[in-house]
Amino acid sequence: MSNELCWLTARELARRIRAREVSCVEVMQAHLAQIECLNPQVNAIVTLDADGALKKAADADRALASGNVCGPLHGLPIAHKDLQETRGMRTTYGSPIYRDFIPDVNSLLVDRLQSAGALSIGKTNVPEFGAGSQTFNPVFGATRNPYDLTKTCGGSSGGAAVALACGMMPIADGSDMGGSLRNPANFCNVVGFRPSPGRVPDYPAKFGWQTLSVDGPMARTVGDAALVLSAMAGPDERSPIALQDPGELFARPLERDFKGARIAWASDCWGLPFEPEVRRIVDAQSRVFETLGCVVEQVEPDLSDADEIFKALRAWSFEASRSEDYQNHRSQLKDTVLWNIEAGQTLTGPQLGRIEQKRTALYQRVREFMQAYEFLILPVSQVLPFDVNTPYPTEINGVPMTTYIDWMKSCYYISVTGLPAISVPCGFSQTGLPVGIQIVGRYRDDWGVLQLGNAYESETECWKKQPLFTSRVSCV
Amino acid sequence: MSNELCWLTARELARRIRAREVSCVEVMQAHLAQIECLNPQVNAIVTLDADGALKKAADADRALASGNVCGPLHGLPIAHKDLQETRGMRTTYGSPIYRDFIPDVNSLLVDRLQSAGALSIGKTNVPEFGAGSQTFNPVFGATRNPYDLTKTCGGSSGGAAVALACGMMPIADGSDMGGSLRNPANFCNVVGFRPSPGRVPDYPAKFGWQTLSVDGPMARTVGDAALVLSAMAGPDERSPIALQDPGELFARPLERDFKGARIAWASDCWGLPFEPEVRRIVDAQSRVFETLGCVVEQVEPDLSDADEIFKALRAWSFEASRSEDYQNHRSQLKDTVLWNIEAGQTLTGPQLGRIEQKRTALYQRVREFMQAYEFLILPVSQVLPFDVNTPYPTEINGVPMTTYIDWMKSCYYISVTGLPAISVPCGFSQTGLPVGIQIVGRYRDDWGVLQLGNAYESETECWKKQPLFTSRVSCV
Repeated sequence: MSNELCWLTARELARRIRAREVSCVEVMQAHLAQIECLNPQVNAIVTLDADGALKKAADADRALASGNVCGPLHGLPIAHKDLQETRGMRTTYGSPIYRDFIPDVNSLLVDRLQSAGALSIGKTNVPEFGAGSQTFNPVFGATRNPYDLTKTCGGSSGGAAVALACGMMPIADGSDMGGSLRNPANFCNVVGFRPSPGRVPDYPAKFGWQTLSVDGPMARTVGDAALVLSAMAGPDERSPIALQDPGELFARPLERDFKGARIAWASDCWGLPFEPEVRRIVDAQSRVFETLGCVVEQVEPDLSDADEIFKALRAWSFEASRSEDYQNHRSQLKDTVLWNIEAGQTLTGPQLGRIEQKRTALYQRVREFMQAYEFLILPVSQVLPFDVNTPYPTEINGVPMTTYIDWMKSCYYISVTGLPAISVPCGFSQTGLPVGIQIVGRYRDDWGVLQLGNAYESETECWKKQPLFTSRVSCV
Repeated sequence: MSNELCWLTARELARRIRAREVSCVEVMQAHLAQIECLNPQVNAIVTLDADGALKKAADADRALASGNVCGPLHGLPIAHKDLQETRGMRTTYGSPIYRDFIPDVNSLLVDRLQSAGALSIGKTNVPEFGAGSQTFNPVFGATRNPYDLTKTCGGSSGGAAVALACGMMPIADGSDMGGSLRNPANFCNVVGFRPSPGRVPDYPAKFGWQTLSVDGPMARTVGDAALVLSAMAGPDERSPIALQDPGELFARPLERDFKGARIAWASDCWGLPFEPEVRRIVDAQSRVFETLGCVVEQVEPDLSDADEIFKALRAWSFEASRSEDYQNHRSQLKDTVLWNIEAGQTLTGPQLGRIEQKRTALYQRVREFMQAYEFLILPVSQVLPFDVNTPYPTEINGVPMTTYIDWMKSCYYISVTGLPAISVPCGFSQTGLPVGIQIVGRYRDDWGVLQLGNAYESETECWKKQPLFTSRVSCV
């Protein structure tokens, strides 16, 4: 058995399954073999139900044979981010407190993916409670970057990004408060899309109205991410902020003419420090957008207060969602999570009032800015993938970082705007480490972001460069 | 000149204007005469630009004559709630601090009403900063109930309700945090509709993501309220939470067959105290809904924590929006507003976290409840219109009220659910005071609420009973 099936796009794989050119069982066997072969070296999939997966694949084949209507993801294997509740399948949130937690119900997202025909095979690794863009935790250890096994894959959807990059699964889900869909994609040469708040309804959720953390799709190509989004998106009254567009909108062909589209190229990036190689690789891409017909200008919106807003809302959110764990299992929480919770404990109502006011003012400034520009483009991350044993960068290009999330500003500033943003592979460092580019769209224009991401990807095709180590290992 | 034009429905009046059966100037003259005649006794319209109004009416007639496309509200006079910013027209918020404030720009709502053809003639009275459901303030004094000039009209959209009830204008706008669209409608025998959050985008707004206070329409009939909503509603990216449905949806015919529609009749009303006459009048209406074919059950959702949630979010909101006035003009704020602000000052971030968690849990409980019931029906207010010199009821049916808003629980509990709710006239006390009924719909089902309100109204026609005093005064 060859692992060719594992490197097809999800769209092509789904097509072959529907056309019965390949069976779901064959697809599943190929991916399970790939997991068995590669996962021990990267530790991306931390819970796996291989027997159940094969049974589901056989059921999916029977459904096809009997002519049942099949969803757009029919027969595609998927392991879900270990922050998503999965019925009957261990869900740890990367925390020893929940080491043995087995939910009774699926999250809405998992239900939707399954309804669309995806076959749940297991869970992908995360940092403890998704905190920090480095995927390691005391339950499962670290996940490694397939382009350099000594480096981190980023996070918090790190296991998902690595599983995609290694051909262990064709599609993935993730979530993103401060970059958790974008940065692991960026570090692993795959695609991560942070949709608009409410695009993918979040349930169960302790905070139904929160808009900082969102769920979204990951894949190896933008087209595949759009396919996954089409199954994830759409209204559901269990989320009071759900957007009303049906998910099917995202299954349309992505092709569009970008002639004359105006792009703001954030060349200063609010003065943030970058590893020079990141900027060099990303900035060289502006000519690709010009090739597409875009008009690129060196300009960026005023994101004053973004740092204060993000840190306050993040601290508030951690305190609010983890206060019981803090009271009952304090010793089992990592220092950085404790720091976030304790920062949240000191917040006052009036402080949060000022923060919401600043957030609204920032939103309005960015909205006005984006009247003149359809897209904002910047690097995803300020650094290249770093040592897997380093919890977080403590300095960038000579500038010290004060907290464990400071190195993620180029991602989390964008989170604060509320705009949709995608990370698309755009090149490699001299040492072969992946670098992504971040495309930000207008208010709720998730579709425009996917379209431009797709057009850009077609020009560059970076995604086709598989991790060398996957070919050095014989999985056959 | 007769005041017949002043008692037509807005739909009929707009039709006659479009058909050029009556000119905009005639319509304006009739309403200005009505205002001149009645307003001194009720004090509903506190800023009036009669000359400007006549000029706008003449312009509107010229636009019609030249065959320009006219909006659905073409030629209808409107005075806006004095919490809405109006370009070039005094906007006081009922506060002496803003006694001379003249905004440079319209609020989005005012712009939309004007774009739809409504003619802005002035402003309607409010309590100071809209706080409390009794319309009095140190700038303009109190607004009186046209059904008994010794009684309050409710609030905070009190001036709007009275202006409608007196035939001074055919349509109105209002806003509602804890009942401000519903209770004045209820006290004045008109219709007030609290739409879903985001249905009417709010801009400028200091807190773009807040969902407790909403703007909405008022009118004498449900059909007219739907007409106004059709001009107010629809997406706008200046509000990050705007719903996506176009406003035109609400201009469709409202007729619907309600056979078999399941109604939860909140007969216990969470144990809240009521003036017995209110309950007697409202409870007698269940047979009207049965006449419509509805299935009425005595049952209500669990609204535990609604009181705590509302009071905390209200205090937080007052502190956040009025902190500058508190610092700079403390002596010019009324005690009840000071109390709200000072309660907000003591709130902590963790407290707000618990509140948001409880609010989400309440939302989910109500959502599950409403799977079995399409509507929830209850009284609007717990009391009849009370003495205009009483700031707020201090007891109801022997139960003491702790705060100035406690008597509004039957309204503000519903605000916390996030569901759309309408107040429709349903009867009169033995002394001739109006009583309304509150119809609450499912999540985002503003349309369903308007439809049932319309069907109910057609059966009862309470709205046709004009205030006696308006006929005792000769306005001709």
